[in-house]
Amino acid sequence: MAGLFITFEGSDWSGKSTQVKLLGQALVEAGYEVVLTREPGGTELGTRLRELVMNGEAMNGKTEALLYAADRAHHVDTLIRPALEAGKVVISDRYLDSSVAYQGAARGLGERWIFDLSSWATDALFPDLTFLLDADPAELRASRAEQRVSRDGVPLDRIERSNLPADEMRASFKRAAAEDPFRFVVLDALSTVEELSEQIAKVTLQKLREERSLP
Amino acid sequence: MAGLFITFEGSDWSGKSTQVKLLGQALVEAGYEVVLTREPGGTELGTRLRELVMNGEAMNGKTEALLYAADRAHHVDTLIRPALEAGKVVISDRYLDSSVAYQGAARGLGERWIFDLSSWATDALFPDLTFLLDADPAELRASRAEQRVSRDGVPLDRIERSNLPADEMRASFKRAAAEDPFRFVVLDALSTVEELSEQIAKVTLQKLREERSLP
Repeated sequence: MAGLFITFEGSDWSGKSTQVKLLGQALVEAGYEVVLTREPGGTELGTRLRELVMNGEAMNGKTEALLYAADRAHHVDTLIRPALEAGKVVISDRYLDSSVAYQGAARGLGERWIFDLSSWATDALFPDLTFLLDADPAELRASRAEQRVSRDGVPLDRIERSNLPADEMRASFKRAAAEDPFRFVVLDALSTVEELSEQIAKVTLQKLREERSLP
Repeated sequence: MAGLFITFEGSDWSGKSTQVKLLGQALVEAGYEVVLTREPGGTELGTRLRELVMNGEAMNGKTEALLYAADRAHHVDTLIRPALEAGKVVISDRYLDSSVAYQGAARGLGERWIFDLSSWATDALFPDLTFLLDADPAELRASRAEQRVSRDGVPLDRIERSNLPADEMRASFKRAAAEDPFRFVVLDALSTVEELSEQIAKVTLQKLREERSLP
């Protein structure tokens, strides 16, 4: 495919959303066509599913995993793949590694199975580049202490309140990164916003130049 | 588990919903506690998912299959399994065989995979008894000709309008029945309502007596 597919992964409060926006701006300034999106919720159906998962009635881990997979199948089919085929750069705030860490590891459904489910759902569409914003969960919480009851005044959703084992999720993200070093770039989430955004833009522009210079 | 789990399968217009109600009445009259339900849509979450699948935006087969599986996972976890554990008879209008026939066979996603997905979603909860209301699709359509544009005045939904290959679905239901003759009872959907309901009640009451007389 002509475009480039970039994802951001990491725990809540790791600063992913900020970096997605900053990278988007940098790429637009460099002349690329960019689509910013997120999971769950990048499509109309996804917005409804996000609402059901995050603020709906209680549900077990399998139901949640299947709704995330449905969201991803639709997201890839109607938004990500068409944009890549049109040569655009797609940047998604979370993608399959989040499901593997949340449902596969933290909820105990099995990392391999959740990976296979996403792989089936997306006809095996994997990112070209994944930025993992990594930090010790306790340090991250301390550094973001003022945000812990709400985020920008918005109360925490069901997932944020659920206290999924943050250490297990971090370990899962790091396992994924270790297994696929060519796709992953692991960054220290406790760095400043500016340090991170500079490094991310540099790696991405380098990757784009490499891809475009391929025969 | 103490209860009995009964499902009805067959194509649209085969008369399942009518037979679900009649069997429910017969069992209540015989003194059983009965829960009538349906898929998709037996729970609050299910009702929202049913609406998304049947009347929402267009979606591909995989998205649809994952939403049906999520609905089923939640349905089993919050409604079917608790009712069975409380000793009730649960009768569902459609269950996993419908997914195998619709998404697995007619939409070409693979019967085995769709079966395995449901099996995972439900922690392998299979019906004790499944009534398949079977008929040649063309004959069924002819016998229900007056209902073809709407059903009781309600316009057809996205699934009903989609003209899934009815012969493939029928063949899939019959394969499932042939593979599991102990669970399935195949009935002629072109029989009269009374003939069918009598036969269904008789088989079910017999099954209940057998189950209750087990050591």
